[in-house]
Amino acid sequence: MSFVDKLDRTSQKNNSLLCVGLDVDLSKLDKSTSIFDFNRKIIDATSDFVCAFKPNSAFYEMYGTKGIEALAQTIEYIQQKDIPVILDAKRGDIGNSSTAYAKAAFEFLKADAITVVPYMGEDSIKPFLDYKDKGVFILCLTSNPGSKDFQTQNDLYKQVAQKAVKWNKNNNCCLVVGATKPEQLKEIRNIARDMLILIPGIGAQGGDLGKVIKTGGKRIIINSSRSIIYSPDPKAAAQKLRDEINNVL
Amino acid sequence: MSFVDKLDRTSQKNNSLLCVGLDVDLSKLDKSTSIFDFNRKIIDATSDFVCAFKPNSAFYEMYGTKGIEALAQTIEYIQQKDIPVILDAKRGDIGNSSTAYAKAAFEFLKADAITVVPYMGEDSIKPFLDYKDKGVFILCLTSNPGSKDFQTQNDLYKQVAQKAVKWNKNNNCCLVVGATKPEQLKEIRNIARDMLILIPGIGAQGGDLGKVIKTGGKRIIINSSRSIIYSPDPKAAAQKLRDEINNVL
Repeated sequence: MSFVDKLDRTSQKNNSLLCVGLDVDLSKLDKSTSIFDFNRKIIDATSDFVCAFKPNSAFYEMYGTKGIEALAQTIEYIQQKDIPVILDAKRGDIGNSSTAYAKAAFEFLKADAITVVPYMGEDSIKPFLDYKDKGVFILCLTSNPGSKDFQTQNDLYKQVAQKAVKWNKNNNCCLVVGATKPEQLKEIRNIARDMLILIPGIGAQGGDLGKVIKTGGKRIIINSSRSIIYSPDPKAAAQKLRDEINNVL
Repeated sequence: MSFVDKLDRTSQKNNSLLCVGLDVDLSKLDKSTSIFDFNRKIIDATSDFVCAFKPNSAFYEMYGTKGIEALAQTIEYIQQKDIPVILDAKRGDIGNSSTAYAKAAFEFLKADAITVVPYMGEDSIKPFLDYKDKGVFILCLTSNPGSKDFQTQNDLYKQVAQKAVKWNKNNNCCLVVGATKPEQLKEIRNIARDMLILIPGIGAQGGDLGKVIKTGGKRIIINSSRSIIYSPDPKAAAQKLRDEINNVL
């Protein structure tokens, strides 16, 4: 089953556009808790309220091979629940190196989708798109302060959205647009039409949910990480955010 | 000792501006050879002719935890010879995620330097630059066909070079410029002045060594991967390329 089909099925089943980001930081946990134990509890608590999970590779890589093992274990655990996994890895390199990164994400880690960086252009992204059943989320406009350095200069983010539409031969190309930029999200939506857009930046980063949904439409995934996984009650936090999203839709 | 000092010392000792890229592809080797065994032979054969080694993370990640172990082992082996290691990882994410990537590269893998992608702007690169003794190579203009999609549109590569100069508070910021673009290399050199520039794309990718050195000057590192590591005689290939570089200088 393709990533998009798996996502749509989970989204319908759980009546949810919410993705929970699994960005675990061991320094915030008590010492007896392992990365996988922490993730398992979050996954069990929230899996009825999400359309996908999104582990960020950085937070696993920082623990070396032990972290990579926990990442693989986490992805396997999510797959057993038939929920799609978006690996947030922001990869991209010349063709043969991107082919190796795609193998790492899709064959070794068995993720359903990945985030990629467009800076190096088409041949850096094609090896990912060539996996027709996998989703490829191209960074378009990010939620951080540094997005003003290049992305909003000369409308680079619009160029990226236009290229993404052109490269989307296998209907598996998606975009990442930060929740902190609702006006630009509208422009991007006009370019990308019904392309799936992953929207981080709600919660800890301060994006406005109402504005985001009004401009982004229904073909979106709203990601929240820290405000759910470090909540005293992750289950209630996930359910609440899912319902808030549905109330605005 | 800082990356730049270690690089300069090795460069003087070996009279070399050559960096050998360790992008091992097991499918090109006979089955009894491990990644580390292959690298060790290349390192032993070429270490008197290089200023640095550059493993590309993609080619290790594709083998999962086994690959990451081989990468860590390779870096440790190079460090024992007092030669700097540039981890070619093309990372970059929002601040707290880039901090985690910097920990992975500099604390777990113990690389001396890393390559990063500028798409997400200053706060995505600062966590790497904050390691004052480590080198941070920002992708500016790459050697692949896709560099025309965004990098050469509206002179994005010049904007990146200008920002790199501004961000270089710790004198550890460097650039990556492909050997296939000697004219733009000249423009970048004018902007970046004496900033260290890593130049891939000689050899397999077809860059012209003479033009590159005439425009890039002496503050460069010339990288070659496949044309050395898959040569029937890597030692002779490395020595020959080092000497060719020195003859043009």
